[in-house]
Amino acid sequence: MEDLNEVYLSPLPDSPYVKPFRFNYTQNGKKKTWDLLEIHDSVAIIVFNITRRVMIFVKQFRPAVYYNCISRQDRESNNIDTKKYPASLGVSLEVCAGIIDKNMPVEQIAKEEVLEECGYDVKVTDLQKVLAYRSGVGVEGAVQYMFYCEVTDDMKTEQGGGVDDEIIEVVEKTIPEIEEMLQSQSILPSPPSMVYALMWFIHHKADKFRKTFERTCVECKVK
Amino acid sequence: MEDLNEVYLSPLPDSPYVKPFRFNYTQNGKKKTWDLLEIHDSVAIIVFNITRRVMIFVKQFRPAVYYNCISRQDRESNNIDTKKYPASLGVSLEVCAGIIDKNMPVEQIAKEEVLEECGYDVKVTDLQKVLAYRSGVGVEGAVQYMFYCEVTDDMKTEQGGGVDDEIIEVVEKTIPEIEEMLQSQSILPSPPSMVYALMWFIHHKADKFRKTFERTCVECKVK
Repeated sequence: MEDLNEVYLSPLPDSPYVKPFRFNYTQNGKKKTWDLLEIHDSVAIIVFNITRRVMIFVKQFRPAVYYNCISRQDRESNNIDTKKYPASLGVSLEVCAGIIDKNMPVEQIAKEEVLEECGYDVKVTDLQKVLAYRSGVGVEGAVQYMFYCEVTDDMKTEQGGGVDDEIIEVVEKTIPEIEEMLQSQSILPSPPSMVYALMWFIHHKADKFRKTFERTCVECKVK
Repeated sequence: MEDLNEVYLSPLPDSPYVKPFRFNYTQNGKKKTWDLLEIHDSVAIIVFNITRRVMIFVKQFRPAVYYNCISRQDRESNNIDTKKYPASLGVSLEVCAGIIDKNMPVEQIAKEEVLEECGYDVKVTDLQKVLAYRSGVGVEGAVQYMFYCEVTDDMKTEQGGGVDDEIIEVVEKTIPEIEEMLQSQSILPSPPSMVYALMWFIHHKADKFRKTFERTCVECKVK
């Protein structure tokens, strides 16, 4: 994942992914403009493996994160120096997610993403709705639908890691590791939807999966 | 806020806010491209008024949210029909936030946003760091720094509502109202950072501000 070179920026051609335009409007009698972007709606899925009591994450190189680690001055250069800016700067940690670019129910899209990215074959009915929100309100305002699903080792029928050119690493974290992440003051390789997902899981689901020894009283050793 | 007309889209000119480009790279020997966007880093501030025990929110018309409520077919039209698509569709509910477009400490930017948007004059030292995360990982990867601050009615020295052309309404919500929002399966006028902010507040701060009558046992009337 971290073998990165020949990094350079070029003007945006006609792109199926990023469609910027100017939104013109008159609000309370005053003419205004706002520059924004058309992007796809998306799904995000919190996947928890109940066999081994670990949450399933995906790690991948994200050009948008990497780019934002480069100083303004160095962005002007023709070629980005990947020794000064190693690929690891752009590696994000996220919950399984994907854009809605097919005409099918969101649950079906979510099911396919869990299989493609994480390798687990879940049923549409295994998916619990968590929340729908705007992925952004500034330059992009698409909807993201968040789901939760529990999986077992038996349901891991494929390798995961994405399709086509995608290079995605599946990562597992225990409940104490998730709690540690939430205690941190900085979670820079991740978007706020992931932080929300972690908090939602800890407060709605984690208790029934905590291992008994985590609950043992340190003073009296009583479980 | 909801008097909206003359809505139309036009091509993006050279914009100080939205700078799209193509990121070219070679990962594990394979040439790839990713289309993305340069945007500013930002701050977000959870403001809680301890005099009246209410959280302070901002409501505003967000073109990006409004645009995403318009059907694909109607987006092609020269003028968007504001009778069919009233402004209320694009009105978001958010915590106080702003972009970092001045060369000063993030805490100072946060302080100014709280004053401009909400009207409260807080000290930089009143701001507690909550979390820094990526505002997105897909097409934009800027950092957002989240803070928390407590204010009193005495600190409300200005009207709030934004500067220049901004039309921002300051909205207050009680702790039970926040909890109700978090129970909902859809929070479509809001971004995930706000949902995280609500959850963070409920689990880290709310208990000490709950009014006693909220804790009265319904069965026995004992407080």
